[in-house]
Amino acid sequence: MNDNSVTPHNLEEKRGSRRRARTRADILAAARQVFAARGYHAASIAEIAERADIGVGTFYLHFRDKDEAFTTLLHECFSETRQRVQQAVEEEGQSLLVVLQAIFRYAYAQRDLFRIAFHADMQYARISRVQTAIAEILTSILTAAHEKEPLVGYDFSMQICFVTGMITQGIAQWLEHEEADPDKIVAQMLFLLRHGLPEQVLTGNSLEKQS
Amino acid sequence: MNDNSVTPHNLEEKRGSRRRARTRADILAAARQVFAARGYHAASIAEIAERADIGVGTFYLHFRDKDEAFTTLLHECFSETRQRVQQAVEEEGQSLLVVLQAIFRYAYAQRDLFRIAFHADMQYARISRVQTAIAEILTSILTAAHEKEPLVGYDFSMQICFVTGMITQGIAQWLEHEEADPDKIVAQMLFLLRHGLPEQVLTGNSLEKQS
Repeated sequence: MNDNSVTPHNLEEKRGSRRRARTRADILAAARQVFAARGYHAASIAEIAERADIGVGTFYLHFRDKDEAFTTLLHECFSETRQRVQQAVEEEGQSLLVVLQAIFRYAYAQRDLFRIAFHADMQYARISRVQTAIAEILTSILTAAHEKEPLVGYDFSMQICFVTGMITQGIAQWLEHEEADPDKIVAQMLFLLRHGLPEQVLTGNSLEKQS
Repeated sequence: MNDNSVTPHNLEEKRGSRRRARTRADILAAARQVFAARGYHAASIAEIAERADIGVGTFYLHFRDKDEAFTTLLHECFSETRQRVQQAVEEEGQSLLVVLQAIFRYAYAQRDLFRIAFHADMQYARISRVQTAIAEILTSILTAAHEKEPLVGYDFSMQICFVTGMITQGIAQWLEHEEADPDKIVAQMLFLLRHGLPEQVLTGNSLEKQS
């Protein structure tokens, strides 16, 4: 029960679990490369195993199937995004800018994974999971801001829904526009959330002012 | 070659094609009820045929499979949304408010379909198609507004991407919150696009002003 006690038996167990963790990490790294190179459907467990330098049987000791390996990759990517956001907030303060920068910069680096997750062939469940994670982060920002200075007129759950939609759609851009720089996306999103859209676009009212 | 010529043969042909169109419409109406009642996966062609009062064989004369019937329903829903938007714009002028109202009011009435399309089990392709249709409408609004008065600082394709994300996420709300009233969603979206979010939320800067 005491994890700190060092006995030959414990040492052996720890070595075994380290080895298993290494193999698992190797498989995931290989899976990622194969998914990125071939896409989800064409990726095969045989190729993943070959690239990880293990037997196909060993793959199945760690993952039920290809889908579980992919879901694990995505899940690790979300956890890491969360940690990056957490760290950025601790270092730079809690604001939407800081959160957006952390999300988009990391997501851009991981865009090979997101590109697969957002592919037309994929089930919506994966995107829903990204959205739930983002919505949780946004909730804490808005709640904290609201406690300091009440945000009047904003329906929190709806606003969080809108901003979550902006973020996932922003990430989905990398499906088609490789060149969309993460900092440029963040700058444009902040521009919209700072200035809104002209009344002319919203209601057409300022058109009357024209000659 | 002349569709307006009336011959007994033509009349017969027209009657046949009207009959086929009626059967097709009956099948779609039945499919919609069965999908709404059972969900996508549990819906069976046998039940759809029974409810449409046709044989299963007749179903297959009109649709390849269950998926084609569902896709057709969705497609008709998008076309109808487009027509509603078009009509609203002609009557009330081209503005985001008018477009959002038309989209959300109609989508709310069709939320049984959207709920199925946005279900976790569904492929992302369906949602992408909704987004493409919305993005096209937004492009024409922004382009028209820009021609009348240049929109400085806005990257069009990114802003359209953000607003598209807000709209699809707003529609996805009906997956969980039946009560979200379409006009309230539009009002909140317009509120956000008019006032943006407080600087305090965006960059944390106004926090310094606090005592």
